[in-house]
Amino acid sequence: VTGFAPELVDAGFAVEIADAPLLHDGLNLADLAHVLVLREDKIIPADAAKGLCALLLEAHRTPAADFPYNPAFGETYNCRERYFTSRIGSEAGWLHAGRPRREAVRTALRLRLRRDVATLVSAATDFVSAASEVAGTHADTLMADQTYLQQAQPSTFGHYLLAFAYPVVRDVVRLEGALDWINTSPAGAGCVNGSGLLRDRRRVADLLGFDDVIEHTRDAMWQTDGLLNLVAIATDLATTLSKLAEDLEIWSSQEFDYVELAAPYTRASVLMPQKRNPYALSVVRGQAGVLIGTMSGLYAVMKSPSARSDNLIFAYGEVPRAVDAAARSTRLMAGVVSDLTVNAERMRTELLAGFSQATDLAEYVMVETGVDYRSAYLVVGEAVRRASTDGLRGIDITGAMLDQAAHSQLGRGLGLADRDLSQVLDPAAIVASRVLSGGAAPSLVRGMAASCAVRAAERRAAMTTRTRGFDAAEATLVRTAEQVVADG
Amino acid sequence: VTGFAPELVDAGFAVEIADAPLLHDGLNLADLAHVLVLREDKIIPADAAKGLCALLLEAHRTPAADFPYNPAFGETYNCRERYFTSRIGSEAGWLHAGRPRREAVRTALRLRLRRDVATLVSAATDFVSAASEVAGTHADTLMADQTYLQQAQPSTFGHYLLAFAYPVVRDVVRLEGALDWINTSPAGAGCVNGSGLLRDRRRVADLLGFDDVIEHTRDAMWQTDGLLNLVAIATDLATTLSKLAEDLEIWSSQEFDYVELAAPYTRASVLMPQKRNPYALSVVRGQAGVLIGTMSGLYAVMKSPSARSDNLIFAYGEVPRAVDAAARSTRLMAGVVSDLTVNAERMRTELLAGFSQATDLAEYVMVETGVDYRSAYLVVGEAVRRASTDGLRGIDITGAMLDQAAHSQLGRGLGLADRDLSQVLDPAAIVASRVLSGGAAPSLVRGMAASCAVRAAERRAAMTTRTRGFDAAEATLVRTAEQVVADG
Amino acid sequence: VTGFAPELVDAGFAVEIADAPLLHDGLNLADLAHVLVLREDKIIPADAAKGLCALLLEAHRTPAADFPYNPAFGETYNCRERYFTSRIGSEAGWLHAGRPRREAVRTALRLRLRRDVATLVSAATDFVSAASEVAGTHADTLMADQTYLQQAQPSTFGHYLLAFAYPVVRDVVRLEGALDWINTSPAGAGCVNGSGLLRDRRRVADLLGFDDVIEHTRDAMWQTDGLLNLVAIATDLATTLSKLAEDLEIWSSQEFDYVELAAPYTRASVLMPQKRNPYALSVVRGQAGVLIGTMSGLYAVMKSPSARSDNLIFAYGEVPRAVDAAARSTRLMAGVVSDLTVNAERMRTELLAGFSQATDLAEYVMVETGVDYRSAYLVVGEAVRRASTDGLRGIDITGAMLDQAAHSQLGRGLGLADRDLSQVLDPAAIVASRVLSGGAAPSLVRGMAASCAVRAAERRAAMTTRTRGFDAAEATLVRTAEQVVADG
Amino acid sequence: VTGFAPELVDAGFAVEIADAPLLHDGLNLADLAHVLVLREDKIIPADAAKGLCALLLEAHRTPAADFPYNPAFGETYNCRERYFTSRIGSEAGWLHAGRPRREAVRTALRLRLRRDVATLVSAATDFVSAASEVAGTHADTLMADQTYLQQAQPSTFGHYLLAFAYPVVRDVVRLEGALDWINTSPAGAGCVNGSGLLRDRRRVADLLGFDDVIEHTRDAMWQTDGLLNLVAIATDLATTLSKLAEDLEIWSSQEFDYVELAAPYTRASVLMPQKRNPYALSVVRGQAGVLIGTMSGLYAVMKSPSARSDNLIFAYGEVPRAVDAAARSTRLMAGVVSDLTVNAERMRTELLAGFSQATDLAEYVMVETGVDYRSAYLVVGEAVRRASTDGLRGIDITGAMLDQAAHSQLGRGLGLADRDLSQVLDPAAIVASRVLSGGAAPSLVRGMAASCAVRAAERRAAMTTRTRGFDAAEATLVRTAEQVVADG
Repeated sequence: VTGFAPELVDAGFAVEIADAPLLHDGLNLADLAHVLVLREDKIIPADAAKGLCALLLEAHRTPAADFPYNPAFGETYNCRERYFTSRIGSEAGWLHAGRPRREAVRTALRLRLRRDVATLVSAATDFVSAASEVAGTHADTLMADQTYLQQAQPSTFGHYLLAFAYPVVRDVVRLEGALDWINTSPAGAGCVNGSGLLRDRRRVADLLGFDDVIEHTRDAMWQTDGLLNLVAIATDLATTLSKLAEDLEIWSSQEFDYVELAAPYTRASVLMPQKRNPYALSVVRGQAGVLIGTMSGLYAVMKSPSARSDNLIFAYGEVPRAVDAAARSTRLMAGVVSDLTVNAERMRTELLAGFSQATDLAEYVMVETGVDYRSAYLVVGEAVRRASTDGLRGIDITGAMLDQAAHSQLGRGLGLADRDLSQVLDPAAIVASRVLSGGAAPSLVRGMAASCAVRAAERRAAMTTRTRGFDAAEATLVRTAEQVVADG
Repeated sequence: VTGFAPELVDAGFAVEIADAPLLHDGLNLADLAHVLVLREDKIIPADAAKGLCALLLEAHRTPAADFPYNPAFGETYNCRERYFTSRIGSEAGWLHAGRPRREAVRTALRLRLRRDVATLVSAATDFVSAASEVAGTHADTLMADQTYLQQAQPSTFGHYLLAFAYPVVRDVVRLEGALDWINTSPAGAGCVNGSGLLRDRRRVADLLGFDDVIEHTRDAMWQTDGLLNLVAIATDLATTLSKLAEDLEIWSSQEFDYVELAAPYTRASVLMPQKRNPYALSVVRGQAGVLIGTMSGLYAVMKSPSARSDNLIFAYGEVPRAVDAAARSTRLMAGVVSDLTVNAERMRTELLAGFSQATDLAEYVMVETGVDYRSAYLVVGEAVRRASTDGLRGIDITGAMLDQAAHSQLGRGLGLADRDLSQVLDPAAIVASRVLSGGAAPSLVRGMAASCAVRAAERRAAMTTRTRGFDAAEATLVRTAEQVVADG
Repeated sequence: VTGFAPELVDAGFAVEIADAPLLHDGLNLADLAHVLVLREDKIIPADAAKGLCALLLEAHRTPAADFPYNPAFGETYNCRERYFTSRIGSEAGWLHAGRPRREAVRTALRLRLRRDVATLVSAATDFVSAASEVAGTHADTLMADQTYLQQAQPSTFGHYLLAFAYPVVRDVVRLEGALDWINTSPAGAGCVNGSGLLRDRRRVADLLGFDDVIEHTRDAMWQTDGLLNLVAIATDLATTLSKLAEDLEIWSSQEFDYVELAAPYTRASVLMPQKRNPYALSVVRGQAGVLIGTMSGLYAVMKSPSARSDNLIFAYGEVPRAVDAAARSTRLMAGVVSDLTVNAERMRTELLAGFSQATDLAEYVMVETGVDYRSAYLVVGEAVRRASTDGLRGIDITGAMLDQAAHSQLGRGLGLADRDLSQVLDPAAIVASRVLSGGAAPSLVRGMAASCAVRAAERRAAMTTRTRGFDAAEATLVRTAEQVVADG
Repeated sequence: VTGFAPELVDAGFAVEIADAPLLHDGLNLADLAHVLVLREDKIIPADAAKGLCALLLEAHRTPAADFPYNPAFGETYNCRERYFTSRIGSEAGWLHAGRPRREAVRTALRLRLRRDVATLVSAATDFVSAASEVAGTHADTLMADQTYLQQAQPSTFGHYLLAFAYPVVRDVVRLEGALDWINTSPAGAGCVNGSGLLRDRRRVADLLGFDDVIEHTRDAMWQTDGLLNLVAIATDLATTLSKLAEDLEIWSSQEFDYVELAAPYTRASVLMPQKRNPYALSVVRGQAGVLIGTMSGLYAVMKSPSARSDNLIFAYGEVPRAVDAAARSTRLMAGVVSDLTVNAERMRTELLAGFSQATDLAEYVMVETGVDYRSAYLVVGEAVRRASTDGLRGIDITGAMLDQAAHSQLGRGLGLADRDLSQVLDPAAIVASRVLSGGAAPSLVRGMAASCAVRAAERRAAMTTRTRGFDAAEATLVRTAEQVVADG
């Protein structure tokens, strides 16, 4: 009998135990490192160290699902303590020397999150690679770019799509900064005022592959800023992808018919035989909303006094799950983009049906006739309205129509009646003219796409280097513990 | 092979399948009712109805954990369809007549939520009962009520605690309204434009114990307002309890020492032998923050176009889980309050050590001397400052001190030098004087406590009546289906 | 010199003074009622009451912008106190007898909010009226209803639009409940433990036109549940309108071309001469997001201990502003809907170009041939895919094509080769068949539209009755005070 | 007559015009730079450039409040266009050459935000300086550090306070990263597909003192990630300060009496003469909650499709105001901390009254007797419970008491009966022993405080360098424009 109220088990420990699988690996590693340091510092007897190492290595090989985590006995750490004692008796009690529960769990959380961040960065760089490649392929696929979902100016699908690679790259860089915060060691903080037992806080940090030690011990135990920062970045990433998902969901409609998702990213209606629904896009959009909530909730949680447990109890589960959800959405969008069918013909037809050349035309009028832009704008606007009323398209506008509009708007003609506007009004020519930095000209889009792809590859490689460092440190830690066991 | 992309399974179906246990019972009931109506309306053959009833009754007896829900095969409904077909072949195909997937799942969600709301109301009324009882017990337990955590006026712990019963009662009433929304039937909406097959939408509603049919069929399929309303109420309830929890956490400190949680609601520190931490209060406070996030996230999700699946996909799990979490917190606070040790002596000591009688004293000065309140306030304020500087307490203030202060503030004495202020300054007398409606006088607090307890009992009984109605309808539904199977 | 730190003025008082215009009217009324009751209860001298009434009536006639609110002197109440003292000296000090600052401001907030809620209900019922009228007009305007923005089933624009009237009506009813909470009086709570001076708390309530007195005095001072409830409802309303706005923004695109906003709800691009942007819809959608934040923030604020000023300081401004913002968005959508141009021809063309009759066709196959729905679905699905590949539309499908598909899917024909499917596939006939409760049949839509219009008129009238009550009470209060001044 | 619907003016333009004062300066600068480049590139006539420069310089000298911004005429940019035309006729029309409204406003927002960020960094570094200085002063002020507000271990107020300097420094570094994003130029993006008119996008960037040009033009126009990132950081900073504020509010209670706010940061109760309320702390805590809402709302807003105006319309006001609010709170807390009275005697008394030495005692038992930590913990726990029951304090525990507890817990004594525990139990000695990195030993705290102060000074200086760069660029821009006017 534990003496805990069943309502407490239900409302508290059950929540924490549900997060045990997220922390299990990290706790095993953190415990091993702690024991090794206690042994090195001669704080615990060699036999106890050996026994504990053997037991912890066994736990390390045991999946979380097979470990006796049970909310009736408290939270994750309590369950471990109870189990270890059941196995080796009071010798297990050495594990707690010089370290509170919270230090162990805080450390485990960071060991978990550094992997989660690496996974998210991997997904994000995959998305950037996919978007860059598809953008390069569609550098010549003409499309009317839109604002308010109204045709704005001639552009290309490649230029459009590439606009999503850039913010994702920026979030990758932010995630690297978040990882710098994560991959520091709170260990050796001795609850809050510093350890009176250990000799060097850096030793545990090194054993676990942390980049650094968090200096101030109260800060080490209770800092929350990096968790909020991490979740805010992951949510921003999900929000960026939600924008793309909603664009594509609109463009997947019969009425737009700009794009079609590959079948593996859709699902059939059960009632309606004709329907293939872009389910992937709904998932990505909904998940973004859920993540906005997770983030808001964590901030609301953290608006607590300092050094209160509510600051972290819920974060142990919420933060890794949020990062994981963002990674899933990101991988899904990488897949959606990679296998997307783009209906270039349809995009071109709608582009030609509209008037998105109007800005270029107004600039032409301004440059050629010397009227100010606002006047040129009024003239072209009038010409467009008349053309639209007459069932004409942008490419059908003539110099004579401009002059007619000028008479109406400015009270005089502009001498444009005989001009050949075919180049001015040709969307392909317009796009080709956008050669200023970052513009839609196909060569520029291909160049930017290549550069984004390189950027993605670099960031992916840098993260791989970091995760190899984690792997190496963790493997060394396990081997060192195995040696302790072997050596007796 | 399903043809689904693994990323889609991972990001989408896995989320939905994780919610299958929440919807399993409701889906079985909804499917049974649908088959019975299809049979009554002669839309499907008797044999098919019999076979489907038998199969669905079997599913009804199968725990969700033992049912072959598997994200590789799609979401919950897909898995059921697949399993049913594997069992009885194409006969299972009759189940989908006249009903889309979403109608089945929407219906199941409501069957689930009506139980969840009943559970939350039960917990909330238990809290009100507990708080009322403890408040009545402490109607005479003097305590300085506080604002800004500064002593404000003499009151009692009973009056204080009862202030939490009232908002919880109001949330109970709001939850009853939310249940009115929930317990209506979307069935028979025929996807969105209305069913062309069924004869009467009321029949399914009656079979499932719904109070009413949602009239407009598009509204029936896509309404989200009641879900947001429900989660907002549950979050408000959690927020109210978080206030109480934080008050109690502060008062549990050694420095306040006003209250002590019963041991079953605390947990021991692993490092620090002297500590019993009020873990229950941390859980309640943290959970409130998490719920604020869940609610914000659902609103963000719902800020979607209409009739898009993201509106509901995530709500299937998020809403029941939020209501459940609120219920757990509420039960926990009911327990905490019931078993709370109140340190009346300590409360009284701190009350006497302070100056919370100052408002009464100023009103006395005003009434007795005819000076305006602001002047009386200045006089008393001055007297309090001097007393405080001299190490005196509120009860030590004399008429002479008031006159001295009056000279300083008003330039004249008030003739109070010889007055006996003992009654004016006695906290018990002050509290006893608060006999105006809702005040802290013990008899009023006992009366209000009794009235709150009655209110709680009434609402609990009303909810029990409703849940018995659900029980009866569901039992009848199952028996009717069993009869179909038995009759052949 | 006030002695306040400039940072405090900047971060605190400036925020509160920015809200003074929201509370000014209510504070004048609350002060007047308080003085009248103090006078009736003989707590203050007749002369003081007369002088204060004269001063407060003057303030009542002074616009907030002309009243000397100035953060350098504290918050709103402080500024009033200072100004009143500057005008009539210490006689102004009687105003504070038996009432803390917070009671005055809490009361004023409710006086403000009851007007704000009435305004929001007025806007919401106007929206319902507008939507109902337009829906009735378009009961025969055929349109493919959509899920995932994919054509789902034949319906009408009238049926679609009416789906937004219902949730708005529900929010109106919720707002009436919120108003019940708002229109209760906290007055006479005597800070927190009850008044020791007044004779009857109901008197102030009656003077101000409140429906009732909040019984428990601590609850009266500190309750926040109704504020959160109010903002949550307003945000839900905004979210519902955001759904409609996004639908319309999509349908306003050149590619959909289903609807066109009236010019007064659009704005021109400054650069692009051809563009008329549906600015109104952007405003409505963005405002919904901002309101989600306001609501989340208020919940986060309220997750504070009890009886702390942060619970309310920010709510004084945030809550009225949120309700006002929701009202503005609602009025805007009422206007947008009223003046919307619906392109029935275009909707019909796209409907005929698709396959949204497929569900009806599958039901036909099921009913006519006796195969189960799933089999019928597979047959129709196959037929649709083939038709689509061949460039045919839903209305082009023949019985022979179904039989061919049946051979492929079921291994046998279904004897449908000679059937005339023209009625089955005619969208108008399909819609006309939706005569079951709530369906899209034009007569039903007209009936529901009429019923919603009646509902809106009823709720509007009920609210008008309530606001007339407020008007009457406030006018009587002012007249009574004027009489006091006149009588001397 | 503008033709705008009054509801649109009310719901849309009024919101945007309310933000005009935030953008006014930036718009003047952005317009000037645009005109200078148009002139350099010979796109507009020299006379037009001269006239526009003169007019814009006049606007630059006109406060926003005196500029004819009026929602009846549209949003901020519209009002400017209208006014400029009213002043110089069609010549004003050259201003719009090659640039959409959104580019101008996006640019202006960044010019505003770079100042807002600098202000926030200045406030944050001031807070770090203040906290470091006070922490250094109180490096020897003994205090029991707390978790769950329960005494945990002996520490000092200096060590405690310094724990807030570190996360603020980290947010400063994050803000510097946010500024890198902000201080890049979207100009020359030509709406979305790139400019066809200009020669070099870098020229405008240089004129305005931007560090770089945002390459991809669609990204340049529509990126939102940096805005969300900025608000998330500001909100984190506010949340950190809210923790400190709540700690101090608790500690300001009569029952704790650990600290006292300086009078300029408090305000008096209007009713209660004895009260000085820590109003500053309420403001800081409430503002943090409001900011959490602003952030959540902005994320909800941004979960929109791409290139829709709602993405930014509301951000123009919400983002600068959020950063400003955070800065005000931060400055306020810097003041609160600087002038805080710390009641060292009281802290020490409560420390000695408790048992926070228990962890050290258990470690002593472990080290001295060779029992494992868990056993030592049980022994000390037992001894503490008995001492507490007997009314003893931690410092009263003797070796004999430990032995007695060991008999009870372990079934044997530990030979500690004669030990002198005075050093082990002396809080000052315990604190002095925390010499491991980051611990509470006074010398370490002084060292960390000095190092934080240096860090703050460095970051402040770096930001000053950046703002001087902004000043210089803006001054040069104005001088260049003045020269254009002068030269004719």
